[in-house]
Amino acid sequence: MITLEQVRKRAEADAKTYGYYLTPDADLLTAFLEGLKVNEDRYGYPLCPCRLASGKYEYDRDIICPCDYRDPDVAQYGACYCRLYVNKAVYESKNLPEVPERRPIEKQNRAYAPQTAKEATTEGTQEKPASATMAQQTGQFKKKLWYCKQCGYMVYREDPPYICPICKAKREMFAEIKSEVEFSG
Amino acid sequence: MITLEQVRKRAEADAKTYGYYLTPDADLLTAFLEGLKVNEDRYGYPLCPCRLASGKYEYDRDIICPCDYRDPDVAQYGACYCRLYVNKAVYESKNLPEVPERRPIEKQNRAYAPQTAKEATTEGTQEKPASATMAQQTGQFKKKLWYCKQCGYMVYREDPPYICPICKAKREMFAEIKSEVEFSG
Amino acid sequence: MITLEQVRKRAEADAKTYGYYLTPDADLLTAFLEGLKVNEDRYGYPLCPCRLASGKYEYDRDIICPCDYRDPDVAQYGACYCRLYVNKAVYESKNLPEVPERRPIEKQNRAYAPQTAKEATTEGTQEKPASATMAQQTGQFKKKLWYCKQCGYMVYREDPPYICPICKAKREMFAEIKSEVEFSG
Repeated sequence: MITLEQVRKRAEADAKTYGYYLTPDADLLTAFLEGLKVNEDRYGYPLCPCRLASGKYEYDRDIICPCDYRDPDVAQYGACYCRLYVNKAVYESKNLPEVPERRPIEKQNRAYAPQTAKEATTEGTQEKPASATMAQQTGQFKKKLWYCKQCGYMVYREDPPYICPICKAKREMFAEIKSEVEFSG
Repeated sequence: MITLEQVRKRAEADAKTYGYYLTPDADLLTAFLEGLKVNEDRYGYPLCPCRLASGKYEYDRDIICPCDYRDPDVAQYGACYCRLYVNKAVYESKNLPEVPERRPIEKQNRAYAPQTAKEATTEGTQEKPASATMAQQTGQFKKKLWYCKQCGYMVYREDPPYICPICKAKREMFAEIKSEVEFSG
Repeated sequence: MITLEQVRKRAEADAKTYGYYLTPDADLLTAFLEGLKVNEDRYGYPLCPCRLASGKYEYDRDIICPCDYRDPDVAQYGACYCRLYVNKAVYESKNLPEVPERRPIEKQNRAYAPQTAKEATTEGTQEKPASATMAQQTGQFKKKLWYCKQCGYMVYREDPPYICPICKAKREMFAEIKSEVEFSG
């Protein structure tokens, strides 16, 4: 089990790496870090405490803290959706901005719909939920090799990151690396 | 269109990530950031304002800010070629060093020669400029998979970075990952 | 030959990138940096001065500074094994913690055993040391493609890093990317 102190240290170190600050609201900070600890103990990964978990790793991956949306949100609004990570101006002003949910609706649907689908259709079986099967069939959520056309940074994901963590290029700078080989994992 | 404020924030955040500072010369700073904004509006990417654009992404890639040469230049001279990014000592002394152009002459040639070649030889056609075709034939500029032998960091580029952004190993520590598969993209 | 000043600058820049500090003990710091310079001059890479070199790159790779063990050690103990890199709390308290050796015993064996094995068994031949051959036969030390299941970060290494340098996920979040292709390099 992870300790609250380890969760705090990891968040502080990560904020420093990216030039961010942790929220200036001390009560919020404590609540967030406790939320992260509870989620890590429960799910095995530090799921965002401000969002609803599906409990399935492959559907929750994008909202594991630091989530996929943190960097574009801090760049655009000065804070992430939870206001756990903020930039210097927000940290000093202590005015936490409203940050709209950037998570695409199809990822939200994928995360929460299958539960119902499963309960309704696969009662007593071990089949996969309908929507996941469909996504696999259509290849919509298949992992691919991507690279940043500016710096060459490579990732293996369903879709490219919003901002290149190495050179800060925009998502549009990512392209798929194609080959005749199938990759899995 | 990107705002000047977004350009400034991105540069500040990136400086912080790498432990750099933005130039201590306020007038230079304003001029640079405006130059980056103009280039991003014009070309779609923040091309270095101190260099000449070819206007073709594949030839300009290495001089998109932060350019391929920034990290080795800051390591060696305390500042990048433009003196936009500087280290702490330069920031505090306010003595901006002279930084020679590290961009290889063959990349400069590739970027600026094709324009003339194209005008001369492919008037009215859709053919690729001669030098690009030649480079593709010889495979000189073909993208490859590279990895850092120290930390394993992978990139998909024509040539490896000067410094590994993850572990700071020198360019010589990069080697090609070979296989029988052709990659494209 | 690298200068002591270059070694110092690289270590300072890297500490800043990761939100670390260099040891607050000035004598230790000088000794470490000189040790790194000596090793880089001798071996071509800045081997950890607190560990014993095998002199073979493929066996020493994990203890090239910053070593594979730095990030999990700073996260857990506030300092790396050498106490060259420390976190803010350790830097300010000036109390350097004891940090146990995290390097797996099999990597230590692999690094130091072959010398003896070679001397004993391949006297006068150009054969590879027994243990290296065995490792290659069993594929135990073969490089593979790995990716972080949280952020998609890719590496080409024998084993995944302890902490994802991009999103800070734990080693358990890394999985192998599989395909029918053999990679080498």
